[in-house]
Amino acid sequence: MKKPTFRWVFFIFIAKPMGMEKQEIYGIRAIQECIKAEKTIEKVWLLKGQKGPLIQQLEMQLREQNIPHSYVPKERLERFNQRNHQGAVASISPIAFVDLEALLEQDPTIGQQGLFLLLDQITDTRNLGAIIRSAAATGVTAIIIPQTGSARITADTIKTSAGGIFSVPLVRVDHLKDALYLLQAHGIKTLGITEKADQTIYQHQLNGPLALVMGSEEKGISKGVLKLVEATAKLPMHGKIASLNVSVACGTVLYEVIRQREHH
Amino acid sequence: MKKPTFRWVFFIFIAKPMGMEKQEIYGIRAIQECIKAEKTIEKVWLLKGQKGPLIQQLEMQLREQNIPHSYVPKERLERFNQRNHQGAVASISPIAFVDLEALLEQDPTIGQQGLFLLLDQITDTRNLGAIIRSAAATGVTAIIIPQTGSARITADTIKTSAGGIFSVPLVRVDHLKDALYLLQAHGIKTLGITEKADQTIYQHQLNGPLALVMGSEEKGISKGVLKLVEATAKLPMHGKIASLNVSVACGTVLYEVIRQREHH
Repeated sequence: MKKPTFRWVFFIFIAKPMGMEKQEIYGIRAIQECIKAEKTIEKVWLLKGQKGPLIQQLEMQLREQNIPHSYVPKERLERFNQRNHQGAVASISPIAFVDLEALLEQDPTIGQQGLFLLLDQITDTRNLGAIIRSAAATGVTAIIIPQTGSARITADTIKTSAGGIFSVPLVRVDHLKDALYLLQAHGIKTLGITEKADQTIYQHQLNGPLALVMGSEEKGISKGVLKLVEATAKLPMHGKIASLNVSVACGTVLYEVIRQREHH
Repeated sequence: MKKPTFRWVFFIFIAKPMGMEKQEIYGIRAIQECIKAEKTIEKVWLLKGQKGPLIQQLEMQLREQNIPHSYVPKERLERFNQRNHQGAVASISPIAFVDLEALLEQDPTIGQQGLFLLLDQITDTRNLGAIIRSAAATGVTAIIIPQTGSARITADTIKTSAGGIFSVPLVRVDHLKDALYLLQAHGIKTLGITEKADQTIYQHQLNGPLALVMGSEEKGISKGVLKLVEATAKLPMHGKIASLNVSVACGTVLYEVIRQREHH
């Protein structure tokens, strides 16, 4: 996405700085209008078994624009605010997503001092909000989340981010692997944070361009992603505790980067 | 409290390791039995305007044992599980509290390497749980919370502490000032973490015996407590973000202590 998207974020920030509700759009044509207007569609739910040229056109647009969508029975659609769902419901995000490739090419300083945060399977909306808040406080270049399997950006996420969501660019990719390849191609070191690592974060040089990968508390970083990172690091643990809350771990690692870069 | 209390915690841990429900006790005599049995009473709610020797005796015991209690209208008492509240309800904590003075005197190594965490006005039970979890992971000597104005230890706190609550000693004091005086008398440096500080945590030597004071996100450290700490420190902040989630800030500071002590 290009500059108009940034202007839109700014407008939203002025108009409704906090606690905004997610907006739902009903009906195929209305969803197509949203796509045309470049609004950020979080997800689309389509009634199973629909046929006809209009639905086919929408399906094609959703695939082309990489918009997450799923096919559900009518009972699921009836759980939305308006029961008259017209076979298609879209959830509109008040947040605009940016394009990673464009971001990397726009800013030549990223190659020297970029700090990226890739979130793998983080499903708790409050943890996501706290992570975004810490990312804003440590000047993270961008947060990268996959299309599927991660927490959606809800009013609760926006609230727990304490406004951070409006200052850190968010990138949504089909799969984190795509982002890892792209970051590595730009000379950015990729580091997975996992309790299975041999070395602690204190044994790593974190002052170059860096992309940190955080996994969920339950599942950690997925195997496919873990294979692609150049190195792994852990936080040291005392006693019987195996891991930290993911937002605490993330904040602690981000601040270790800041310490090494600015406060050594 | 003395050794029997520890044995009781151990029993609870074996019997119901996680997600235990808080227990409620109804009636003056039942509450007196709990006091006699040295169970840890979190709080007592008494019906306003009760008179008679029995209630007077209980009030005296509550004051003597420093058990938090308040006087409420009958509508409040009726919100507990049993409507037949008999004018007095106690909430029993599955967690045992330890005595700070006893702890300081029992372990002579604390004077060299103690790490205490004082929580001022932390009211969110999930944040409290995440803080206890980080404290367990960083080998904190004890967490100190005031009798009133802080989050109660609920089933949610126990769950979010991920078992940490069973490995970090908890101390409950009338007021944090009492703990600060006692810690300072034992040669432990007291450091308040506040965004109003001039210096960052990276400008402080954190490798001696240390007591960290964390305030709430809304109110920060209360003025009376802030006056008593020997120094203050902040986490550096980029951009427009003014503060972090309190459990993230706490974990980050605890790990900076660990880094300075063990990973420099």
